[in-house]
Amino acid sequence: NAGRPRIVSADKAFDVALRTRFHIDYGNWFPDSGISADLPDGFNVRRAFFGIAGTVYRDWAFEFTLDASSSRGTSTRLQAANIAYTGVPGWRFEIGLMQPPFTLDDATGSNDIPFIERSAITNTITNIVASESRAAVGVRKTGSNYMVAAYLTGDQAAISPVGGDDQLAAIGRGAFLVHSAQNQEVAIGASVGTVITPRQGTGPGAARPYLFADRPENRIGGGTLLVSGGTLDLEDYTVWGGDIGASFNNFWAAAEYYAQDVETRDSPATVADEGADLSFEGYYVSLGYILTGEHRKYNIGTGGWAGVVPSAPFNSQGGIGAWELAVRYSVNDLQDPDYVTPLEGKQTVWTFGVNWYVNAAIRFMLNYQMIDIERPAPLVDADADAIIGRLQFQF
Amino acid sequence: NAGRPRIVSADKAFDVALRTRFHIDYGNWFPDSGISADLPDGFNVRRAFFGIAGTVYRDWAFEFTLDASSSRGTSTRLQAANIAYTGVPGWRFEIGLMQPPFTLDDATGSNDIPFIERSAITNTITNIVASESRAAVGVRKTGSNYMVAAYLTGDQAAISPVGGDDQLAAIGRGAFLVHSAQNQEVAIGASVGTVITPRQGTGPGAARPYLFADRPENRIGGGTLLVSGGTLDLEDYTVWGGDIGASFNNFWAAAEYYAQDVETRDSPATVADEGADLSFEGYYVSLGYILTGEHRKYNIGTGGWAGVVPSAPFNSQGGIGAWELAVRYSVNDLQDPDYVTPLEGKQTVWTFGVNWYVNAAIRFMLNYQMIDIERPAPLVDADADAIIGRLQFQF
Amino acid sequence: NAGRPRIVSADKAFDVALRTRFHIDYGNWFPDSGISADLPDGFNVRRAFFGIAGTVYRDWAFEFTLDASSSRGTSTRLQAANIAYTGVPGWRFEIGLMQPPFTLDDATGSNDIPFIERSAITNTITNIVASESRAAVGVRKTGSNYMVAAYLTGDQAAISPVGGDDQLAAIGRGAFLVHSAQNQEVAIGASVGTVITPRQGTGPGAARPYLFADRPENRIGGGTLLVSGGTLDLEDYTVWGGDIGASFNNFWAAAEYYAQDVETRDSPATVADEGADLSFEGYYVSLGYILTGEHRKYNIGTGGWAGVVPSAPFNSQGGIGAWELAVRYSVNDLQDPDYVTPLEGKQTVWTFGVNWYVNAAIRFMLNYQMIDIERPAPLVDADADAIIGRLQFQF
Repeated sequence: NAGRPRIVSADKAFDVALRTRFHIDYGNWFPDSGISADLPDGFNVRRAFFGIAGTVYRDWAFEFTLDASSSRGTSTRLQAANIAYTGVPGWRFEIGLMQPPFTLDDATGSNDIPFIERSAITNTITNIVASESRAAVGVRKTGSNYMVAAYLTGDQAAISPVGGDDQLAAIGRGAFLVHSAQNQEVAIGASVGTVITPRQGTGPGAARPYLFADRPENRIGGGTLLVSGGTLDLEDYTVWGGDIGASFNNFWAAAEYYAQDVETRDSPATVADEGADLSFEGYYVSLGYILTGEHRKYNIGTGGWAGVVPSAPFNSQGGIGAWELAVRYSVNDLQDPDYVTPLEGKQTVWTFGVNWYVNAAIRFMLNYQMIDIERPAPLVDADADAIIGRLQFQF
Repeated sequence: NAGRPRIVSADKAFDVALRTRFHIDYGNWFPDSGISADLPDGFNVRRAFFGIAGTVYRDWAFEFTLDASSSRGTSTRLQAANIAYTGVPGWRFEIGLMQPPFTLDDATGSNDIPFIERSAITNTITNIVASESRAAVGVRKTGSNYMVAAYLTGDQAAISPVGGDDQLAAIGRGAFLVHSAQNQEVAIGASVGTVITPRQGTGPGAARPYLFADRPENRIGGGTLLVSGGTLDLEDYTVWGGDIGASFNNFWAAAEYYAQDVETRDSPATVADEGADLSFEGYYVSLGYILTGEHRKYNIGTGGWAGVVPSAPFNSQGGIGAWELAVRYSVNDLQDPDYVTPLEGKQTVWTFGVNWYVNAAIRFMLNYQMIDIERPAPLVDADADAIIGRLQFQF
Repeated sequence: NAGRPRIVSADKAFDVALRTRFHIDYGNWFPDSGISADLPDGFNVRRAFFGIAGTVYRDWAFEFTLDASSSRGTSTRLQAANIAYTGVPGWRFEIGLMQPPFTLDDATGSNDIPFIERSAITNTITNIVASESRAAVGVRKTGSNYMVAAYLTGDQAAISPVGGDDQLAAIGRGAFLVHSAQNQEVAIGASVGTVITPRQGTGPGAARPYLFADRPENRIGGGTLLVSGGTLDLEDYTVWGGDIGASFNNFWAAAEYYAQDVETRDSPATVADEGADLSFEGYYVSLGYILTGEHRKYNIGTGGWAGVVPSAPFNSQGGIGAWELAVRYSVNDLQDPDYVTPLEGKQTVWTFGVNWYVNAAIRFMLNYQMIDIERPAPLVDADADAIIGRLQFQF
């Protein structure tokens, strides 16, 4: 909390901090083959958060955040508005609009993720049941070496249009620290989610449209979708999978795998079989090395990675900040033999990253991506490279 | 001001506080008969305020507030931006975008209203001449047992589209404390408003469209309009009425009545008689009882109700907060014999409420509504029930 | 920084201030001849800024600002999000979304400009290469009697839609204090800008549309465009010009001139000659006199005017604030013999202004405008008067 402007009452019953976060990216695309879409080069306002968070009346935490990043800064939405009762030690009862804990990648704050974008598979599944700004109520229990959480979730604020009835879903996640020592952690986790009542359009018999996809870990130009499971009329949805994170001194590694079972409701034109039961899967493996020796800590309280704090911040007195190298291999497989949409395919992305942590408030990131799309005939495969830089400021 | 983050200069000439307010609702509809519209269930972001208010240079108050609640948090508008000169004791000269004082219900802050929504009649009339974010200039004089206010008002920011010429209206309100003792107040008030120059569309001879209606004290699903006086081409408009508020220890009661005279300009298709002079009226009666013994104070300085502050906030040390029961009978009668729009009707709503004041910052509300619409033949009557819960956080 | 809420760490390494700015205008048009557009009367939310700015880790400045003024307060955009390294004395290395230094008028903050709107010529040219919310990276060097700045600029956040590739441009500005004494400054400046890569629409062979125009120094009713160089398909663009500012005690004067060379790409219907090389120019001269004796200082650090700070703020203790009279003659000539768009013309505006500085936070402004449009036959000339008042609050 060093650099965060705070107002604290004498008895610590009130402790309120202003929060700011902006992530501004600049990128270029190098399409190679099979890409018909225009991939625009330029800058993107990825996040522009302004808000307030803290504690009131000792036992109540709150968070309120606006995000001015929509359409490159054109529009401001509500990113978070929630309260939590923390009066029972180890327990956290939360309600409001929030980002409920789900997967390792999503449990890591966007200020702390080692790559400019999270993995496509974790975005694909959290978008259905757990992403930010989501109406949710739940409980989290943490101990010295575990966290378990269960939440009922509804729709997302801001992103979902007002229309028919809201979705109702349930998610759970547990993470367990299986090894812990000075600058060493190994943790495993599991996440499961299911849609109890699908979101429904307006009017009787309306469709329940769900999109299974995520952009190729790149939002330059607004974010082009290169591969997609299409928009399906949902009957049932379940996702499950696991994660592992390990950190030894200045080296860290992570991996996650998720399988999705998607049962469609009836016979939309894009599905070969009425009530088809489709299966999608995805995973990633990532490695990181911090040249300047800092340790990236696994935070069992959130079930996610903490950020890198440079031991010698860059400034006019001579520090050089922290420097991190990272690589990720990521697969999002949105194919199924029962499935005939012309959009389907399997996306593979290699991302190579360099991160410069100037100080605890400022980070510059550079990612080089090699994107590869495999599609079943008669579709053609596609591939492209991309380079993205990020300016990050937060407190 | 206990829980409000403030920055105060040593000589008190500057005193600035951060302000946050979020009201997040979740509701279900139970339509019974005569309702053809889809009434979507789910959550709603009713208010999401973030701003700053205070005093600068000793004699000048200011208020600046954003509201991120539009379309469930998709968009952020300007809710208030005004200054007031308070250098003459008892007087307040205000200019800017504000919610000018009009009616008892509207003079009660949204954090303090006993029901999730204000009465339909007060919303209907303030929407024409006095609702929030309105360009206004005026003066308020307060004494120990009265307040009187007179304002010139223009259009609303954010809500009115930029187009033709703005409306100009005048409003006045007085409130008088006729009885006052320890934990006892009885006050009566009167409000009057008139449109001097109606809002006009773009181009010569453009219409002056005004909608006389309000939702059935329920905004779940974006807010369905069940009854309406229709969109009229306005020539003249006057509204007048009175209010009474009484509070004895932990019991309170309130009532308001307003009559509207609406003269239409010429012969739109929805009006039987050119230049018809239509009359609408509405009223409500409400009662409340605070189980835990707190007093809901009538604040003569604003001419509205203050909130309930729990004497024992709920926390891990054992308080249970404050609990309030409330009931309201509300009528919005938008019928007139001279009037042939197919939308007209009379809306009656019974609302039963339970409010839990956790502490001065957090309130949970639960309302059950029985909504009844009477319409002249050949239209059919309609009725529906609804349940709404609210999470409220503010400081 | 007197009235600005700040949070400062003991060692001054962190110094963060909340920032608010609202400019609310009310205006009436008096069209005389040749104006076919409806010119709506009413209020306008010209600026509604809320943000935070300051220093972190001693050497890093930052700025983050939202603006809720779009469409009279309907929508909130990102106005600024940038950081600057200030660890080398006299140098400022900046990156992010910002208003890079360009022209004298634009280098003067909107709280400090002597008229309600900046001159049409400076708006026209900064809109192409340097206006606020623009992705930019650059460096500024300041000394006791000079400032020089060079920036690479991209597109604007919020305003430019996401689409094809972004623009890349380069700008430079220098300002030099040629005379300086107690309450006396004379400074000259020069600005030059060029578009390196024009903004491009989506898809191969897409147009590069650029609009050369600005409203008649009046945004009431959303801001009507009375004269325009039209939307041109750009090949090359260069702008250059100079400025002079002089202030002696309570009298000040300023002038700027800019010439634009616009080479079109090929043969759009609005241009007579394929690849036409068009020339536009504009200038203004302004004078001011402060009746209450205050000095309007030229700030060489920013290369712009500082504001007027009243020596006796208006309050209940008897000050009257500061009163300033100002006049400006402004020309924006968007005609060229090679050019056949029916929109072209030459706009001349006389503006007479009175400013009341209540205190360092509050200013009221009143401008009377006489607007004159000359157009080549067969177009007709046009003229109109307008009156605008402004309520300004900031800290």
